[in-house]
Amino acid sequence: MRIARFTTGDDPRFGAVGQDDSGETVIAVLEGDPLYRSPQLTGEKLALADVRLLAPVIPRSKVIGVGRNYADHAAELDNPLPEEPLLFLKPNTSVIGPDEPIVLPPQTSEVHYEAELAVVIGRIAKSVPRDRVSEVIFGYTCGNDVTARDLQKKDHQWARAKGFDTFCPLGPWIETDLDPSDLAVRCRVGGEERQNGRTSQMVFDVATLIEYVSAAFTLLPGDVILTGTPSGVGPMTAGDHVTVTVEGIGVLSNPVVAAE
Amino acid sequence: MRIARFTTGDDPRFGAVGQDDSGETVIAVLEGDPLYRSPQLTGEKLALADVRLLAPVIPRSKVIGVGRNYADHAAELDNPLPEEPLLFLKPNTSVIGPDEPIVLPPQTSEVHYEAELAVVIGRIAKSVPRDRVSEVIFGYTCGNDVTARDLQKKDHQWARAKGFDTFCPLGPWIETDLDPSDLAVRCRVGGEERQNGRTSQMVFDVATLIEYVSAAFTLLPGDVILTGTPSGVGPMTAGDHVTVTVEGIGVLSNPVVAAE
Repeated sequence: MRIARFTTGDDPRFGAVGQDDSGETVIAVLEGDPLYRSPQLTGEKLALADVRLLAPVIPRSKVIGVGRNYADHAAELDNPLPEEPLLFLKPNTSVIGPDEPIVLPPQTSEVHYEAELAVVIGRIAKSVPRDRVSEVIFGYTCGNDVTARDLQKKDHQWARAKGFDTFCPLGPWIETDLDPSDLAVRCRVGGEERQNGRTSQMVFDVATLIEYVSAAFTLLPGDVILTGTPSGVGPMTAGDHVTVTVEGIGVLSNPVVAAE
Repeated sequence: MRIARFTTGDDPRFGAVGQDDSGETVIAVLEGDPLYRSPQLTGEKLALADVRLLAPVIPRSKVIGVGRNYADHAAELDNPLPEEPLLFLKPNTSVIGPDEPIVLPPQTSEVHYEAELAVVIGRIAKSVPRDRVSEVIFGYTCGNDVTARDLQKKDHQWARAKGFDTFCPLGPWIETDLDPSDLAVRCRVGGEERQNGRTSQMVFDVATLIEYVSAAFTLLPGDVILTGTPSGVGPMTAGDHVTVTVEGIGVLSNPVVAAE
């Protein structure tokens, strides 16, 4: 099931995205938040074109990033491969949804896209063994781990470089039925392909990441794990349009604007 | 006003801590959460001894830490002084309250206390100039920025070393009327003094920190900024009892236990 969070002008609602009999893409509206109750249809249906999609989840606790989780990306930035997953945190105030602008802050002059598979956690979980990780995964969405590359090098920690407002686009929806082991992860800027990797190239796979992360932190429903980016990272500038595509999920597209 | 979050066995409530006419310390119960509405008394009063204090705030967004913000602490770990505030994030799942145990995870064999002044944000805020920071501060509490020193050195980023469950004790309450510029910050382990600094020794003062942090991240009500620790950090072991005291606020005390 593809679960979207959307608005038609009032409070955010959730819905299941699919085709109706005529082939139009529609949203079947759900009762409440499917993260906290099993999805139940209200009977109302809306054309996808008539709603505005929002970030499919706003984490109440944390966005966990994983650095250098594709060998070719670690190599392109002259970094060694980590022996264990390299974790960092992004604040929930950095999350935006589809088509919302990525705002380039005045503190940086080098902001990079990083296309990633994002895992959305569905249950409270601690110390999950790898053969049980599927029980705690709600689904998957596309993520862009936007990074001020200059500040990442200058600051000792990555909190600021990866944590600015608007630096965590998520969407367009959450796909709940997906095998994450070998999916294409792509990024385009202005229609030109910049990244094209496969999740099978991850140094640490999704199961290993969740086992490792949950051994340190209690995971809460709505927590997001960004699983790392393949090679091809590079700068975005104001006026660009960046799209992240993950096979089997969809396309997350955001314009890039300068700070006012 | 000293605002505590507490339970008498049911849902958390908030109250103002003070002395009654007989000199007993009491909690005057408040309507709702004073972070989101101006404090209003219900008329109910409870003896402090009859309630269990909880973490005075559970951040809905972020705990922001500041590394190396006291020169003598940077020197004791052989680190240079930062030229700008060195920011990191702790997840809200690391927050515990007074008397709750700090649990030593099996991944580390060197867990340190770090006594700190914690600032609690009261309003949504972005790019706050230093002469207006008082408008966005709700109050102050004591914090312990518990850190797995061995993992801090081994991991490239500090997210795990400082982010384990129970690694962010906060309390005992929030003092809303306080000048943070020159307060004693102390830590004792088993009754023995280990840290004794003053907030006047900070490299970057509270106003500078809020200006800097809010230039990167939107701050939300309940966000916490840990302002750094003075010299004297050191290990805690199971069975220890660690107390953080900040002048004008109170005493935050936590036992230390091994993971089960």
